[in-house]
Amino acid sequence: MKKIDVVHFLLKNLSDVPQRETATAFAPTNIALCKYWGKRNQELNLPVTSSLSVSLNQKGAAVKLKINSRAHDVIFLNDQAVDLNSEFSQKLISFLNLFRAKQKWNVDIEIKSNIPIAAGLASSACGFASLVLALNELFQWNLSSEKLSILARLGSGSASRSIEHGFIEWHAGKEETGMDSYSKKLAAEWPELCVGLCIVNDQQKEISSREAMQRTIETSQLYSAWPEKVSHDLISLKEAIASHDFELLGRTAESNAIAMHATMMDAHPPIIYSSSKTLHMMQKIWELRAEGLSVFFTQDAGPNLKLLFLKKDEEVLKEKFSMMEIIEPFVMPACF
Amino acid sequence: MKKIDVVHFLLKNLSDVPQRETATAFAPTNIALCKYWGKRNQELNLPVTSSLSVSLNQKGAAVKLKINSRAHDVIFLNDQAVDLNSEFSQKLISFLNLFRAKQKWNVDIEIKSNIPIAAGLASSACGFASLVLALNELFQWNLSSEKLSILARLGSGSASRSIEHGFIEWHAGKEETGMDSYSKKLAAEWPELCVGLCIVNDQQKEISSREAMQRTIETSQLYSAWPEKVSHDLISLKEAIASHDFELLGRTAESNAIAMHATMMDAHPPIIYSSSKTLHMMQKIWELRAEGLSVFFTQDAGPNLKLLFLKKDEEVLKEKFSMMEIIEPFVMPACF
Repeated sequence: MKKIDVVHFLLKNLSDVPQRETATAFAPTNIALCKYWGKRNQELNLPVTSSLSVSLNQKGAAVKLKINSRAHDVIFLNDQAVDLNSEFSQKLISFLNLFRAKQKWNVDIEIKSNIPIAAGLASSACGFASLVLALNELFQWNLSSEKLSILARLGSGSASRSIEHGFIEWHAGKEETGMDSYSKKLAAEWPELCVGLCIVNDQQKEISSREAMQRTIETSQLYSAWPEKVSHDLISLKEAIASHDFELLGRTAESNAIAMHATMMDAHPPIIYSSSKTLHMMQKIWELRAEGLSVFFTQDAGPNLKLLFLKKDEEVLKEKFSMMEIIEPFVMPACF
Repeated sequence: MKKIDVVHFLLKNLSDVPQRETATAFAPTNIALCKYWGKRNQELNLPVTSSLSVSLNQKGAAVKLKINSRAHDVIFLNDQAVDLNSEFSQKLISFLNLFRAKQKWNVDIEIKSNIPIAAGLASSACGFASLVLALNELFQWNLSSEKLSILARLGSGSASRSIEHGFIEWHAGKEETGMDSYSKKLAAEWPELCVGLCIVNDQQKEISSREAMQRTIETSQLYSAWPEKVSHDLISLKEAIASHDFELLGRTAESNAIAMHATMMDAHPPIIYSSSKTLHMMQKIWELRAEGLSVFFTQDAGPNLKLLFLKKDEEVLKEKFSMMEIIEPFVMPACF
């Protein structure tokens, strides 16, 4: 099954021409507490296991689509025109092509992202999610968030989890079509929860997470133990979220991230995203924890760490990690 | 079953009083190409899987035992008296006690080691192996190397592989008594093989390999995939050794070490022996390999790397790693 078949199935009986001239949407990026690591279908970005994330509130991407009268799209990223032949543009354009099989239209796409691109902060997640939300607006489809998450997944797996705010579970699903592989928001909120972004290095990473994931699943022998670990971790995380058990949340998220990096290290050739700065920061976190501070980390396909802690410890941690940017996923920001 | 029962069983009908006044022995340390990682029996140091090592020729420990007329043992390590209450002495003394249940005798023990103690260079391996070899001499037991390797294992698991020079396979065995868990030398030699010791840090490590192993087996979920990986790696290594396929040897040994560290990283709390120097050295090795140089590494429970390469590349590698000490496991050293 191809992406285009999924799109046709989902949009059956819905408008296939834009209903508006412009559309705007924002989608938050998300940090997985239980990682999406390994695909059972590369074309449709169907995962081996379910995963669970928390959306990062005001951190994400805003997209504005505006139908233009040119023979091609125009793409701006943070007010800079992007070369249409770049990999970035080609991904966007081929995604948009899924929605203009019938009628050819072109758009000016303005993307504003307030997170570093490709630094392991899921920039493609919020990028594709915001694009799908904007298309939903442009075409006036009025799709459910489950269906929007399926469309976003076709752009980038983790984009499936960026359609909504809050704690999000992406159900792996079993069907070959992936129609049961979508994200759902958990009911629980956690206003005291803080995520601290520690940017060790915001340079473009050398190995994409897509490539790292594929190499791991193909060559790591330890990966065989990953799905079982994920099912345990998902149960622990949902229990932690339901009962606001922060120790359980932090411990599980940290252990899940470390296990993911362990499977990468076991790939051939090995993949190590951590730099010596990353290692030092981990040591510092473990020392603080040994001193009684309840702080944990998670790490994605890059050297940056994301700290997990509660609001009551914010001031202490700000002192320890002066460069850290703090997000409160469940607190409405003063200015969006 | 207790250690003492194994000793009684093995030494049945053999002398239980020293036959000489003094005895001296040397045992080489060994570097595992397929690691011993996880015990199925803590008391007897019985391993979950088989393992395979190469002995490091003149690098190891020499022991001299001399019956004394005191009421206690005396221990010298590299010409320095060692506190009898130290952990080091207590381990030695309780090991010796296994052999003086019947008659109480005391010894001066002089140990000379030419490798850094507890820096992930298997100092306890050659220590206990040389002690067992010296006891074999002192009591005139004339035991087979298989039986000596069983006795050495009671002191430290990897000591089982230090009774002989060359490539050594330690068979995990299945019996509860461990009588089938001993080491055997492989017939093959490989005179061109070089091992380069790169000492990043020769300080005493914070977490003993015994503790790291136990924590991993008890808490790492990825560890469940380790035994299967080991059986594949053992087959590859024996094939590589038999056919002198250096690429296969190096690739397998490196991958085995990385996987072991990956399981440790997945333990709770995580164990990371690599320092930033270790990471930089790994990167350097991978770069050299990308440039066509056939060099690999292995890493034990410490930050130091051991390089694997062939004699023909020695000069180039000496330039790249100026601090490296080179061992040729199959070439008789000029001065032992």
